[in-house]
Amino acid sequence: MEMSVKQIAQLVQGTVLGDEAIMINQVNGMAEAQADQLTFARDAAYVRQLADSQAGAALVPRGSGTLSLTTIEVDQPDLAFFLVLRAFADQLKNPPRAGSHPQAVIADDAQIHESASIGPFCVISSGVRIDEGAVLQANIFVGEESHIGAGTHIYPQVVIRENTEIGKNCIIHAGACIGSDGFGFVPMDGIWNKIPQIGTVSIGDDVEIGSNTAIDRATFGVTRIGSGTKIDNLVQIGHNVIIGKHCAVAGMAGFAGSTTLGDQVRVGANVGFSGHITVGDGSTIGARSGVMRNVEPGAVVSGLPAIDHKKQLRVMAAQLRTPEMLRRIAALEKQLEALKEIKDDETKDNS
Amino acid sequence: MEMSVKQIAQLVQGTVLGDEAIMINQVNGMAEAQADQLTFARDAAYVRQLADSQAGAALVPRGSGTLSLTTIEVDQPDLAFFLVLRAFADQLKNPPRAGSHPQAVIADDAQIHESASIGPFCVISSGVRIDEGAVLQANIFVGEESHIGAGTHIYPQVVIRENTEIGKNCIIHAGACIGSDGFGFVPMDGIWNKIPQIGTVSIGDDVEIGSNTAIDRATFGVTRIGSGTKIDNLVQIGHNVIIGKHCAVAGMAGFAGSTTLGDQVRVGANVGFSGHITVGDGSTIGARSGVMRNVEPGAVVSGLPAIDHKKQLRVMAAQLRTPEMLRRIAALEKQLEALKEIKDDETKDNS
Amino acid sequence: MEMSVKQIAQLVQGTVLGDEAIMINQVNGMAEAQADQLTFARDAAYVRQLADSQAGAALVPRGSGTLSLTTIEVDQPDLAFFLVLRAFADQLKNPPRAGSHPQAVIADDAQIHESASIGPFCVISSGVRIDEGAVLQANIFVGEESHIGAGTHIYPQVVIRENTEIGKNCIIHAGACIGSDGFGFVPMDGIWNKIPQIGTVSIGDDVEIGSNTAIDRATFGVTRIGSGTKIDNLVQIGHNVIIGKHCAVAGMAGFAGSTTLGDQVRVGANVGFSGHITVGDGSTIGARSGVMRNVEPGAVVSGLPAIDHKKQLRVMAAQLRTPEMLRRIAALEKQLEALKEIKDDETKDNS
Repeated sequence: MEMSVKQIAQLVQGTVLGDEAIMINQVNGMAEAQADQLTFARDAAYVRQLADSQAGAALVPRGSGTLSLTTIEVDQPDLAFFLVLRAFADQLKNPPRAGSHPQAVIADDAQIHESASIGPFCVISSGVRIDEGAVLQANIFVGEESHIGAGTHIYPQVVIRENTEIGKNCIIHAGACIGSDGFGFVPMDGIWNKIPQIGTVSIGDDVEIGSNTAIDRATFGVTRIGSGTKIDNLVQIGHNVIIGKHCAVAGMAGFAGSTTLGDQVRVGANVGFSGHITVGDGSTIGARSGVMRNVEPGAVVSGLPAIDHKKQLRVMAAQLRTPEMLRRIAALEKQLEALKEIKDDETKDNS
Repeated sequence: MEMSVKQIAQLVQGTVLGDEAIMINQVNGMAEAQADQLTFARDAAYVRQLADSQAGAALVPRGSGTLSLTTIEVDQPDLAFFLVLRAFADQLKNPPRAGSHPQAVIADDAQIHESASIGPFCVISSGVRIDEGAVLQANIFVGEESHIGAGTHIYPQVVIRENTEIGKNCIIHAGACIGSDGFGFVPMDGIWNKIPQIGTVSIGDDVEIGSNTAIDRATFGVTRIGSGTKIDNLVQIGHNVIIGKHCAVAGMAGFAGSTTLGDQVRVGANVGFSGHITVGDGSTIGARSGVMRNVEPGAVVSGLPAIDHKKQLRVMAAQLRTPEMLRRIAALEKQLEALKEIKDDETKDNS
Repeated sequence: MEMSVKQIAQLVQGTVLGDEAIMINQVNGMAEAQADQLTFARDAAYVRQLADSQAGAALVPRGSGTLSLTTIEVDQPDLAFFLVLRAFADQLKNPPRAGSHPQAVIADDAQIHESASIGPFCVISSGVRIDEGAVLQANIFVGEESHIGAGTHIYPQVVIRENTEIGKNCIIHAGACIGSDGFGFVPMDGIWNKIPQIGTVSIGDDVEIGSNTAIDRATFGVTRIGSGTKIDNLVQIGHNVIIGKHCAVAGMAGFAGSTTLGDQVRVGANVGFSGHITVGDGSTIGARSGVMRNVEPGAVVSGLPAIDHKKQLRVMAAQLRTPEMLRRIAALEKQLEALKEIKDDETKDNS
């Protein structure tokens, strides 16, 4: 696939300074881009670095002026770049063939839309429904009575256990496990008795789930992921967790059972949530935090335990000074002792 | 499946206040339960909330008295609820068909009990033994000479490498990898030389292993998980780790090589263990701790480094006050300086 | 397989004290080794413990003298033991049969060397190249146009997405996912818009990748792992991360997008890297650290935020003393107040 600089400028509503005829066949970073590739400069500092780039053309902020290479001036170079990237990516997509591979094992009573694609070594259990245009690439297991919504793309080695509901246009990356038993046991006489996990998992529309992420089914009721939420790799979501809509959860975050997140919450990498807490709409949790209490809507928190992020920054700075603090306290004690001795001497003198 | 309130009361040795004839077909939380479902109230505070529940009946503590809905009074509502949940779950279970799916690949010399169930796309290698009633659902790999005990249930996409021993009645969740090489290398001249990992993994009876958990084989000797131990999702267990009996290990915990745990140890989420340490029987490790030294039997520890949990709580509280401490130290220094100046002035005055 | 003590001594260039004719068929730890097994003692302290060992023979440091069991004196017992372990392991290896299993699905235009081994239920997509002696054990997915170098061994349930380059003599453990989409979204009006991930992953030679590790493809450009680098289980490597040569990355470490590591970097367990930072050659990052800034070549850092390790040890020690510091500050304040009161009294007295 190729686009001319002129075509790209039309796509991003930009103004060309230089050669409109240059053909672009890929996008790339400033340092890597070649003569047939487009790059971008977010701001004036990056614009200056373009002098060293081999790129055929660059998206730059309006008012950057004539540079050593052809540029397209736009309001927001990063958003414009995203649009071009998406255009190239759409062209790359090879729509998979509709139908079921002869080496898939599909239950007689599974309902699979004729436009769906089921790849080799998939196992589709009894009562499963798979809707229009869904793609199950290969080596995927779908348990009894589960439902995969229209347009959802599932990569290889994914497991979807029984009675799971997956919405439309979701993307589930390789190795994710959805609907495994929650981790629940009743201790009796030193033995852990398994609490049956008879609930389900329900995932909304436009959800993305990362590689090797695990989302457990509810003990009873539902573990729920809201529409538009994006979850990175190696995330652990315990039984009965509720995550709202349009949240973003970075890699290796962990949610203990019955954590509840509102909508549009941003969760940093490797954050841990204690169970049975509520995290308000629009809040942000800094990377590697341990959230042990409810979080207010809109709050920005971080640390272990997670507290207001600005306060946490002050705490972190002060904690690094604890060795200095010990020295200063010892010095104070010594000086005070000296003062008291003088005082005692004076008192003796005066007496 | 349905049970009457009367039948449930018999199961949990409870006393009905209200309509014994109500038919229950599911259990659920107080807020979600419908007219044909049973819920429970752990204590008096929850009993008061029952007024708002739509549940058909509720398990309540003895002495709760007549309420707006039918109740079953019991000694311990949560344990009683667990028993009912288990009864419903047992009914749900669809015993898988015995025998091997035609699309499984099974070595000629593998010994598979006639009551075991081997699903599609499983690979059973040479010398493997699979005992009575074991279930291997689908897309599972079992390496040479491994042994799966009676009644063990293995979910899809699990890998069990060669020479692995799995006991009876275990549950291994989707995506777990058991018996991969330990992470061991000898550095020579800036190159990492692989230490062959020729040991094995041995897992006792009644062990549960979570989704996408990784348990590495020993360098030599055995990586061992004791009977009755329950391990959550995304846990990393390094080579030559020994975990005792009836331990509980929460999600994302990590055990470096040659960590040794006693029996009935409780490990919180995302705990990390340095290698070559010993953790005593009955100890408890708080979530997100980093255990760098041996832990005494029965100890409760937390933090990084993990120390006595009560002490850690005081440390955490004090650490949050480090910015205040800096201010107080500065104030003390200023005041002391002022006092000394007065003193110096006095000394001068006196001289 | 068996080797005599004499043969072992020749292999490790050691000197036998005792019975050269003893036949050894395995290596083991001091406590576990039996009469037909070899163990080792790293130093004098361990040599003393050999008195309690049942081992048939032991590798010991030169000058250890005659002991209760047959010994082989060598310069470095641990390296010698590694050599013997490798000799036993090489013998154990059962070279897999060349050729493709009839139950693998292989695209017509895939180029698979005749000496390569493709196991059951593997899916090899269009345009894939698999070189001499590569082994794909079972249930493995390889996406379009990917390349697997000579001698590389891939364990079951691995996913290698399209356009991925894997070098020679790599080992990829069960459940690893290579080339999944990076986690990148553009927020617009409260919605996360997926940034297409059209880049690739390139892995050098002699790389080892642990079980259930996830390595994401670049947004554009390449996510790169240098030759000789060893990565443990459950590691998360984000889009556009660059890891140099001969690095070692312990389990559960996480790399946010565009982290760049130099060569021979050692990364401890559960370390997290912020994105867009550079970590210098030969540096060492202590376990559970959070690296938020660039790290100098050769530096040893730890903690959250990661700072110089020696400084961090002092900080950690001081932080544990924060409750004591609070008490000492309060005592100082009280004493100073008392002093000031005396002073005020004196001033009054004097006035």
